[in-house]
Amino acid sequence: MRIIVDSIGGDKGPGEIIKGCVEAVNELDINITIVGKEDEIKEELSGYNFSKDSIDILNAKDMITNEDDPALAIRRKKDSSMVVGLKALAEGYGDAFVSTGNTGALLAGGLFIVKRIEGIERAALATVYPTRKGFSLMLDIGANVDCKPEYLKQFAIMGSIYSEKVLGIKSPKVGLANIGVEEVKGNNLVRESYKLLKDANINFCGNAEVRDIPEGVMDVIVCDGFIGNVILKLTEGMAITMFSILEEEFTKSFKSKIGAMMLKPQFKSLKNRLDYREYGGAPLLGLKQLVVKAHGSSDAIAIKNAIKQAKTFVDKDVIKIIESEINILEK
Amino acid sequence: MRIIVDSIGGDKGPGEIIKGCVEAVNELDINITIVGKEDEIKEELSGYNFSKDSIDILNAKDMITNEDDPALAIRRKKDSSMVVGLKALAEGYGDAFVSTGNTGALLAGGLFIVKRIEGIERAALATVYPTRKGFSLMLDIGANVDCKPEYLKQFAIMGSIYSEKVLGIKSPKVGLANIGVEEVKGNNLVRESYKLLKDANINFCGNAEVRDIPEGVMDVIVCDGFIGNVILKLTEGMAITMFSILEEEFTKSFKSKIGAMMLKPQFKSLKNRLDYREYGGAPLLGLKQLVVKAHGSSDAIAIKNAIKQAKTFVDKDVIKIIESEINILEK
Repeated sequence: MRIIVDSIGGDKGPGEIIKGCVEAVNELDINITIVGKEDEIKEELSGYNFSKDSIDILNAKDMITNEDDPALAIRRKKDSSMVVGLKALAEGYGDAFVSTGNTGALLAGGLFIVKRIEGIERAALATVYPTRKGFSLMLDIGANVDCKPEYLKQFAIMGSIYSEKVLGIKSPKVGLANIGVEEVKGNNLVRESYKLLKDANINFCGNAEVRDIPEGVMDVIVCDGFIGNVILKLTEGMAITMFSILEEEFTKSFKSKIGAMMLKPQFKSLKNRLDYREYGGAPLLGLKQLVVKAHGSSDAIAIKNAIKQAKTFVDKDVIKIIESEINILEK
Repeated sequence: MRIIVDSIGGDKGPGEIIKGCVEAVNELDINITIVGKEDEIKEELSGYNFSKDSIDILNAKDMITNEDDPALAIRRKKDSSMVVGLKALAEGYGDAFVSTGNTGALLAGGLFIVKRIEGIERAALATVYPTRKGFSLMLDIGANVDCKPEYLKQFAIMGSIYSEKVLGIKSPKVGLANIGVEEVKGNNLVRESYKLLKDANINFCGNAEVRDIPEGVMDVIVCDGFIGNVILKLTEGMAITMFSILEEEFTKSFKSKIGAMMLKPQFKSLKNRLDYREYGGAPLLGLKQLVVKAHGSSDAIAIKNAIKQAKTFVDKDVIKIIESEINILEK
């Protein structure tokens, strides 16, 4: 198995991504192709120990930034690491592509170069969302910021399949992210989607009240990519802010400093339960081959986990299962 | 001054609402009119001590529920507490109307019965959102689940005025809730709104990345009512879930139980900083008279705070200021 990894696009620069690649080949039984500026990658790699056969490099002179228009960048920046990597994937050089870059460009590239499964209208980014009970699968989390009800129906079907076949959850409870549990609640998109989901061949359990999502009320949370991204980013922001406030409060007295020291393992455990890095990347569900979006601020651990996750997806043949199941369910 | 309070629509039933009214008249220099089932209200009131002149009752036989279609309910349920209360307000019997009921119906009723300020396309629900630095004003938080860019521009102007004139913040920083700071990020609505806000006569500071909202990056956060409600509900849900997880973690060992006991005042302080009840209700900005939406799960404290807030708004003549300022700024 060979995973192709984009060295460009991460907030922390190529260094962390390359470090994650080295850790991945040292830990997992895989090969990796790193795409990006060859000289830069070679220099970074020279500092690490690993089996030289397990990593090769695809040179890419150009890069796509977060400021680039997604569709234009994919069409025009033929020498960018993202386009070079996606083409290598489409041509069968590797089994999966992992990138921390521009989400919109990765989706556009996935659609133009890797292409959608027949019958799928939009590919959706899915991620594991940590909850009190464990986790929910959430999709779309940012690939499609403007959606139609039909897209959300397909997201629900793909998410349900993924949850059942890959995460091993029997008859997963599928919920629609909404501002209330009642059927009449929500905006036009959500209300129209509700009607379609009721008729889909999945275990649709109605609206997932956003307030209840962190508790883990549903196995699969369906939403458009704007809402999904808002939920994800606010969850991160709330965790960061609550820890900052607690730190402020805890340093207020000697007694509270002692108390905080005694609770260090418990706070560490809470932080781990909420840490997106533990869960690696987000697969683009609905494409003919696996494309994984890793978080822009991923460090080496997050990159390694995204690669590990990609390996599991390929091992379990997820795309073939979606391909066959979506056509049965859609009938 | 007379505040009209709807006894129907709260998750906890009329008892908590009536208790809040009694506490309000006992604490503040105001009169209250409670709208709802007269017998029920009389019986509840009989258990409290208060100056009998300060509370009167408006009988309303019917009620609007959360399952009702907002516009239909306002048109057809003439005897509902919400319609009776809003009519009393429009006819000058009181200075403000506070309700925990169906948000959509309250907006529809506000528009049909109390009516919009000339030049305002939609009334927006605004609320004080607690942050690490203090608070931000957020609008719309649920009155308009489907918006046009023009609405968001007016929300920004009203929010800016409110923040400056009532909350006393000089040249408030106005931000657009979005999934990234870059101008190209977001869905169609947000990107179109960005262009309009750049040209508005306010201190527009670009996108408020949702992840940074809990830190308090902006004084005014502008968004459509669906996103605003998602942000608000997820903030509550995250706080509830994080406290639950901490409680689970803290009871794991004797040492952690002791540590948690030592930190009790600090946790209480954090809870208070995040408690929506401390901030009372949400004013509907853009109407000719003051209508306040109190949280559906409000207890007596929340109701009392919503009434107190309504008193302050009336005292400060907020609506007149918006009325005059919006016309200057819109030119």
